[in-house]
Amino acid sequence: MISKNQIKQIQALHLKKNRELENLFIVEGIKTVNEFLNQSKFPVKNVYATSNYLHEYENELQKNSIKYTEITEEELIKISTQQTPNQVLAVVEKSNNNIDSEYLNHQINLYLDDIRDPGNLGTIIRVADWFGIKQIICSPKTTEVYNPKTIQASMGAIIRVNVIYKNLVDIKSSLNNVPLYASVLNGKNIYTHPLKKGIIIIGNEANGISKEILDVANEFITIPAAQNNGSESLNAAIACSIICSEFHRQLNFN
Amino acid sequence: MISKNQIKQIQALHLKKNRELENLFIVEGIKTVNEFLNQSKFPVKNVYATSNYLHEYENELQKNSIKYTEITEEELIKISTQQTPNQVLAVVEKSNNNIDSEYLNHQINLYLDDIRDPGNLGTIIRVADWFGIKQIICSPKTTEVYNPKTIQASMGAIIRVNVIYKNLVDIKSSLNNVPLYASVLNGKNIYTHPLKKGIIIIGNEANGISKEILDVANEFITIPAAQNNGSESLNAAIACSIICSEFHRQLNFN
Repeated sequence: MISKNQIKQIQALHLKKNRELENLFIVEGIKTVNEFLNQSKFPVKNVYATSNYLHEYENELQKNSIKYTEITEEELIKISTQQTPNQVLAVVEKSNNNIDSEYLNHQINLYLDDIRDPGNLGTIIRVADWFGIKQIICSPKTTEVYNPKTIQASMGAIIRVNVIYKNLVDIKSSLNNVPLYASVLNGKNIYTHPLKKGIIIIGNEANGISKEILDVANEFITIPAAQNNGSESLNAAIACSIICSEFHRQLNFN
Repeated sequence: MISKNQIKQIQALHLKKNRELENLFIVEGIKTVNEFLNQSKFPVKNVYATSNYLHEYENELQKNSIKYTEITEEELIKISTQQTPNQVLAVVEKSNNNIDSEYLNHQINLYLDDIRDPGNLGTIIRVADWFGIKQIICSPKTTEVYNPKTIQASMGAIIRVNVIYKNLVDIKSSLNNVPLYASVLNGKNIYTHPLKKGIIIIGNEANGISKEILDVANEFITIPAAQNNGSESLNAAIACSIICSEFHRQLNFN
């Protein structure tokens, strides 16, 4: 049984200000919730599940000493952030990540300069996970990583990818000769320019990379369009995935 | 002035069944509407614009003999499919495309096997446009290209990319030794396997490529993940963009 008060508390977590106040966020769907049950970075506080879910996973919840509550489909719809919720919702504790300077100086990292769409942010985290990129630095104005749409689009990837909010300008002093790649319109061809480990900067969906960040970048790269194309731009998550793919190819398969 | 009846007629076009009945669809936003004004493939029937838009573009509308109606912000909100509409909405006639067999046999084409998310379809069309891919064949169950979300995500790219609904199995006989690339989990590494012009098959978001289509494919390719990665899959539009990028690289910059 779930109380009216509990329903209100979970619904409150639909809003960013309450997620900040409570230091909690929501994870939904069988696959993603189960991924969160099998990790320790983000402690799972409570699982709200329908009988269908419990029929299959109740033993596992008990084995891991996870608090859970059986709810009806109607109750799930009330507490869910999704239009068609899928059997289970978990309330999870946030995790505070610090920048790993060693990783920053020796591996591929992403810097997101004001990505505003939660779905884009989630998709970028999922892409980073695919290509083994373990650290994403977000500008302070980048959309919140705990937004339900971000969590959904990232498909559990935030478990493996550290997301830290910091201005690149403020961490520049801790960088040791690291290339800072800005994706711009007239940069070097990513397919032919030799790419090295460093920080890949992805700009805002509408305005690209801000002047402040362009000023600290030291490598300018471009995804070449076809000669007969008519489009002027690519979606930020798409551009990010193409660039990450090319870094992965050059550093591992060249 | 826009009449109540006109408002109803435009609102009706928010639904697929009415778009099919009327052979019309909706295009929104300054940039995309202006792109449609400068082409002839999709005739623009009527433009509904606020005074802000008309202040800047009324001359152009008159020059091109486009019918237009001045409306208020409130009226725009009523007829729009978007949460924050941007000054202008156009009602546009559909265009019936036929498969270009010459192009099919000699260039890079996409085949979408039941892409269901309108945003994904639009993003894929925009990516195809960027890489100069001019023909996309969609399985009959692929989401409708005239869905407002598809049109919005494609950013005008449907003007330059022909989208045709046909089952790949039914056009196989018109193919002349064309490689049919299926993206699967254990295929050849796209970075090292020499790619040729042909048809790139992209599968459904949840289920991948159907058995019927896998049976006609003759090349099986994979985007290699990092060895230390934890994710199992990429979003369909992301996978499509990485594959298109690699074809573009190998065929033009290798």
